Amino acid sequence: MPEVTDEHVARATWSRLAEPGDVMTQVVLRTVGTVESLEWLRTASDVPPALIERVERWRQRLELVDISRELKVARHVGAHIVIPGDPEWPTALDDLGDEAPVALWVRGEIPPLDRAVALVGARAATRYGERVAADFAVGSIDRGIAVVSGGAYGIDAAAHRGALSGECADGATVAVLAGGVDRLYPAGNETLLHRIIQTGAVISELPPAAAPTRHRFLARNRLIAAMANATVVVEASFRSGARSTANHASRLLRPVGAVPGPVTSAQSAGCHAMMREGQATPVTTPDELAELIDSAGATPIAEPLVASGPLDDLPEDQARVFDALPARAAATIPSIASAAGLTESEVRGALGLLELAGKVRRSEHRWGRVRP
Amino acid sequence: MPEVTDEHVARATWSRLAEPGDVMTQVVLRTVGTVESLEWLRTASDVPPALIERVERWRQRLELVDISRELKVARHVGAHIVIPGDPEWPTALDDLGDEAPVALWVRGEIPPLDRAVALVGARAATRYGERVAADFAVGSIDRGIAVVSGGAYGIDAAAHRGALSGECADGATVAVLAGGVDRLYPAGNETLLHRIIQTGAVISELPPAAAPTRHRFLARNRLIAAMANATVVVEASFRSGARSTANHASRLLRPVGAVPGPVTSAQSAGCHAMMREGQATPVTTPDELAELIDSAGATPIAEPLVASGPLDDLPEDQARVFDALPARAAATIPSIASAAGLTESEVRGALGLLELAGKVRRSEHRWGRVRP
Repeated sequence: MPEVTDEHVARATWSRLAEPGDVMTQVVLRTVGTVESLEWLRTASDVPPALIERVERWRQRLELVDISRELKVARHVGAHIVIPGDPEWPTALDDLGDEAPVALWVRGEIPPLDRAVALVGARAATRYGERVAADFAVGSIDRGIAVVSGGAYGIDAAAHRGALSGECADGATVAVLAGGVDRLYPAGNETLLHRIIQTGAVISELPPAAAPTRHRFLARNRLIAAMANATVVVEASFRSGARSTANHASRLLRPVGAVPGPVTSAQSAGCHAMMREGQATPVTTPDELAELIDSAGATPIAEPLVASGPLDDLPEDQARVFDALPARAAATIPSIASAAGLTESEVRGALGLLELAGKVRRSEHRWGRVRP
Repeated sequence: MPEVTDEHVARATWSRLAEPGDVMTQVVLRTVGTVESLEWLRTASDVPPALIERVERWRQRLELVDISRELKVARHVGAHIVIPGDPEWPTALDDLGDEAPVALWVRGEIPPLDRAVALVGARAATRYGERVAADFAVGSIDRGIAVVSGGAYGIDAAAHRGALSGECADGATVAVLAGGVDRLYPAGNETLLHRIIQTGAVISELPPAAAPTRHRFLARNRLIAAMANATVVVEASFRSGARSTANHASRLLRPVGAVPGPVTSAQSAGCHAMMREGQATPVTTPDELAELIDSAGATPIAEPLVASGPLDDLPEDQARVFDALPARAAATIPSIASAAGLTESEVRGALGLLELAGKVRRSEHRWGRVRP
């Protein structure tokens, strides 16, 4: 079990306070300092307007947290916490920038992920899809490629199972859960998840006892995409959640593959749509999967989102507000609202966040861009 | 039955003399004149060296041809001849330039092909492939899109059958055969081909009694591709002949679609390969097929091959020789051979053909380009 430092404790605490993927958490950690941030949270009186609501919520939760007890509970289920800088930390997660998780709760041990594929797909998979998922997982392991997935029924389970049955390696596979790792969810996969813990890892950015909500499932997908060199969608209906994982991969400039299937199968319609839209390359064999993984290094590596252009990593509202600001002058909230097509209250909220991120500056009643 | 002019007779004769797709036939017709070309063939003594062998062969065949008897035989099986300029001539064939057929032998009547799809694929089709081919053909006919195919077993037959079962139109479908239209080949499709003749057409560029050879099957594919706005490959193994039709379509800058199928099916491997190579768009519904057809007009229309740049329509050897010629000066055969990486004899052959096509000129022992 690695040493637990103040930074581990602070990040463990934050994983209890913040919702997954909330960029403001990372902004605070970066701006105030990781260890200092909790003291700041308890005592700060000069909270920026855009943060007031969040700070309220964080403070309420903080009062309820007994972090040494939490860590004890975690140890009890065999979980440990992994943070940036730890040897076990998947550095690929850093490409998420301010959307990176503050910490990971881990059962088992995260295997090396320098060559990893995210094999994802529909819960309501067909036998064809499950067979292909398992075959591709076996083929990945045999080629030294780790298999990352979501531990769900259907394609995920078939991929994990295939990875565990691979012959050449220890079946390096990682299941990323949307809730705490103490609950091996879904219950029907409990045995499978226990087997994954033996040779790979079951991980979550949420602390033990956290419930998997819809928002957390969607946020979880970004970790699956970020931890792999490429994402391959084995089966997905038009509106499948697996496509959100593919979208995260695309946003990270990681290659996306999709497995063709019968055009008569609704479970392949999402895969075909991604191919038609040019988002996904057809992948039909483990060799083609390996090719996709190895092409990932050949394409321009995704810059950390925080370091990219002023608009690239902003949520929709903030991007529209920033875009509506004159390049060199300053504007009033009503005129920004009119240019951005948003209400004044939406503009006020977005400006607060942009100010906190150092992207805009207020002068009297006017707002302008901060020049890079 | 349309009027049979001297030009019809001349082209009918040439269809007996020349092998499909031999560009030199069109060069002769264009250079000497269609009607005059047969007299020239009988009497010419100044045949360019590059043509001597061909002219020999043509003359031998010409001696055996009794064209009025041929036309009578054709009429007997209900076939008539269609040539460029006839209302029934598919003008899309003109995009083939010097590779266009000299004439078409037709049973039935060629329907309007302003919106047409080439639905092609493996003879050894699966039930899945045949079902999709039939569904797509029905969907095409229902959307006013004619179906062109090769009359073969498997995908071709399923496509024709689907077209004939369409509800909204007369089932406008055209089968392009590799041999004479008097023999409805393959025999197992005779009933189907008879039905096609009732509402569409069975056609060939070869005259009655001509045997379908391997070369003729491959040459036939260019007609299928050229007569349709887009080619959709329903099933094809890696080495399927259907891919040659797709290649002809690509060469004509016509869109190519391919139907995804199970990655476990060898009969879909060619389709997936074309998608991976970026040659084909996945097509999963008749609506997507119609989209592909209508996108054909949106892309730059293929120029007739003969009118394009000096190199575009040349066979490999000639292109290399032309490329090796200095832009403004003239060169000797040894120096051209060295620049082109060909033997002197290969260069001599290619120069003869290029001279005939008016692309190069000789002056003493040196050869140079003819400026456009």
